[in-house]
Amino acid sequence: MKLSQFPLHTQKKAPKDESSLNASLLIRAGFIEKLTAGVYNFLPLGLRVLKNIEAIVRQEMNELGGQEILMAALQPKQNWEATKRWQTFNALFKVKSQYEAWYALGPTHEEIVTPLAKKYIFSYKDLPLALYQIQTKFRDEPRPKSGLLRTREFVMKDLYSFHQEEADLDNYYEKVKEGYLKIYEKLELPVLLVEASGGTFSKYSHEFQVITEAGEDTIYHCSNCGFSQNEEIIEDSKKCPRCHHSLVKMKGIEVGNIFKLKDKYSRPFNLTFLDQAGKSKIVMMGCYGLGISRVLGSLVEVSHDERGIIWPKAVAPFQYHLVSLLSGNSKEDKLIKRFSEEVYQKLLKTQLDVLFDERLEISNGEKLVEADLLGLPQRLVISPKLINTKKIEIKNRKTGELKILSLQQLINYSQHEKHLSK
Amino acid sequence: MKLSQFPLHTQKKAPKDESSLNASLLIRAGFIEKLTAGVYNFLPLGLRVLKNIEAIVRQEMNELGGQEILMAALQPKQNWEATKRWQTFNALFKVKSQYEAWYALGPTHEEIVTPLAKKYIFSYKDLPLALYQIQTKFRDEPRPKSGLLRTREFVMKDLYSFHQEEADLDNYYEKVKEGYLKIYEKLELPVLLVEASGGTFSKYSHEFQVITEAGEDTIYHCSNCGFSQNEEIIEDSKKCPRCHHSLVKMKGIEVGNIFKLKDKYSRPFNLTFLDQAGKSKIVMMGCYGLGISRVLGSLVEVSHDERGIIWPKAVAPFQYHLVSLLSGNSKEDKLIKRFSEEVYQKLLKTQLDVLFDERLEISNGEKLVEADLLGLPQRLVISPKLINTKKIEIKNRKTGELKILSLQQLINYSQHEKHLSK
Repeated sequence: MKLSQFPLHTQKKAPKDESSLNASLLIRAGFIEKLTAGVYNFLPLGLRVLKNIEAIVRQEMNELGGQEILMAALQPKQNWEATKRWQTFNALFKVKSQYEAWYALGPTHEEIVTPLAKKYIFSYKDLPLALYQIQTKFRDEPRPKSGLLRTREFVMKDLYSFHQEEADLDNYYEKVKEGYLKIYEKLELPVLLVEASGGTFSKYSHEFQVITEAGEDTIYHCSNCGFSQNEEIIEDSKKCPRCHHSLVKMKGIEVGNIFKLKDKYSRPFNLTFLDQAGKSKIVMMGCYGLGISRVLGSLVEVSHDERGIIWPKAVAPFQYHLVSLLSGNSKEDKLIKRFSEEVYQKLLKTQLDVLFDERLEISNGEKLVEADLLGLPQRLVISPKLINTKKIEIKNRKTGELKILSLQQLINYSQHEKHLSK
Repeated sequence: MKLSQFPLHTQKKAPKDESSLNASLLIRAGFIEKLTAGVYNFLPLGLRVLKNIEAIVRQEMNELGGQEILMAALQPKQNWEATKRWQTFNALFKVKSQYEAWYALGPTHEEIVTPLAKKYIFSYKDLPLALYQIQTKFRDEPRPKSGLLRTREFVMKDLYSFHQEEADLDNYYEKVKEGYLKIYEKLELPVLLVEASGGTFSKYSHEFQVITEAGEDTIYHCSNCGFSQNEEIIEDSKKCPRCHHSLVKMKGIEVGNIFKLKDKYSRPFNLTFLDQAGKSKIVMMGCYGLGISRVLGSLVEVSHDERGIIWPKAVAPFQYHLVSLLSGNSKEDKLIKRFSEEVYQKLLKTQLDVLFDERLEISNGEKLVEADLLGLPQRLVISPKLINTKKIEIKNRKTGELKILSLQQLINYSQHEKHLSK
């Protein structure tokens, strides 16, 4: 993609109305736009990252045997009354139609997926079942001040599993836990597995926490045995209950939460099945959330420097940022432009993902500053000092590692990199 | 995908609370579920079709130079007040946060995209610009009785274009018109291009109408010169104003609508640019809608028979429906099961899209009835009468054309078909 044909608007200064680092950098780099408190628009670069994260999550959900569906955001009031959450779910947006009906604007989908599952579940033969969606959700947050970490509208993946008995739920829960860890590994997002409240129906749930000062959750962690618990449930914040080592207090962003719901929702909706003896039993459920847009914000929180964002390869909107620097000497510039175009076309032909800054009205300095701000994994520079030898400078945004390569060497290198990332 | 591992629930009878043919068939065949009036959940089969339609539309939008973004559904009240539509847009869902803010639940995005475009548009060099999204929208419809044709929550593609002057808008508008016709052709959805109201700011807009009795729009059409106009603007419903031939009255489903907005939205948001002479001018805009979920419903309205849906190849959830029929003779059934599995694995290996009905608890008759109801383009049957010769029956759902092929012939045939559809 040539930058002259791509809508990009970057800002030198941080936006004034944005206290969070993630939104501030994402707005400066032109990935998102703040529409109003807790509500953001995804611009072309931001949407690319969002979709890359979605693809990684979707692949893992499919590997966990999940079937993708898309449930509605407008959820009938009666479904929320059935679980008694119409009055108790604090962040619920309530919408009234002019034609009588009341809806909850879906903050989560237990109230929808449980009656939906009745369509598929009759006997033990229909179990287990796993349904998931990647969808926009809504929560009426009191203080949306953390950028993409806490918004009133957000993209989330939610998976729901259905089982004959607790033992099967327990097994699947462990598989999902492993699957989540694989996802965060692919995303290069370091997470800590933390015990959290299981509600009234299970001892613990598990949260996947990104440790950073920007986090809103407080976690106590034992560096000796690995024990980690959310502040909300810990009994003694000084000593590890497992090994008696001292605990460390940390801040974290919850980027995933898995829950054994057991019969919490299957009971109010009477989701039952006939077991092998023909006896009617209640279905056991699990639910597994992963905040797609929150992951995007978290990646920026943990992967940036004073110059801008540093995207992990797996989610970067483009892999290569090709920058054409000009000398002001018209003969030399002609050669630079021609060679840059040649490099760009060649990279496209080898199916590489390139953003090409060929703009003439932008200074060399601005181009390089913008490349750092955007944070694509590899920067390619074609410059006056290298044009005579037809070499290209390649710089790794993360490590700063720099190489000078010929076009053919660059192609070989990039093909090798592409192969590695598969 | 093996049906024993795929959540499918079909119904023999039409649902009682569904008067529309499209929703009735889609519910019976397990593609969607009605959550409440005008609100549907997309089940695994339905979501596959939706995504296939999206992919076709997205490809064409990219070819039209559109850049994909994702704007928020929660739209600040003040944006709708700026265009004076907060009070006048009848189908607007209005949502109140507990923390003061009021939102419109986005039924369309002119109020959001116009101020957003200010980020990118400063001078004539930044024009033209085209931004689009594929997103869930909301309208508080009074009588949602037409299944997916008119819902309170729906998936829509909306493209917005920005130009220096009307002439450029006019040119782009014609290109989008051609692009839309290409999309409907790929979707195998026959449409009529119909003149409709242009609002106060343009003589006409254009609608893409699917002619069917299920449609809610009334169109007058001249079979002699092709003139077509929506009832809402026609002056004389008897004679064609162009060739004086008599007009025919028809019913249609509007599956696309393109509009020259000119300065209707750029003026209230003061979206201007500096022309080549450095003079500030107002930006000219166009908007182009295409109802993704409405297209899905329309396809069912125009492509079905008494036995079920008939999906066009380009959007079918799977291309092949492999059915394994059993004889009751255990020795023969063993051969049938083994051969069916071999065929399935071979088709998967050649990257074909197959739904394999290998279920044991379903009768042969039910399997065939269900295959017709689901409406995948090609049905493959492995049956007692053909097992000795290891032949497979292949039947085209649309034409009824039937062939008896060996596995190798089937592979050759399917590879040829796949190649053709590219």
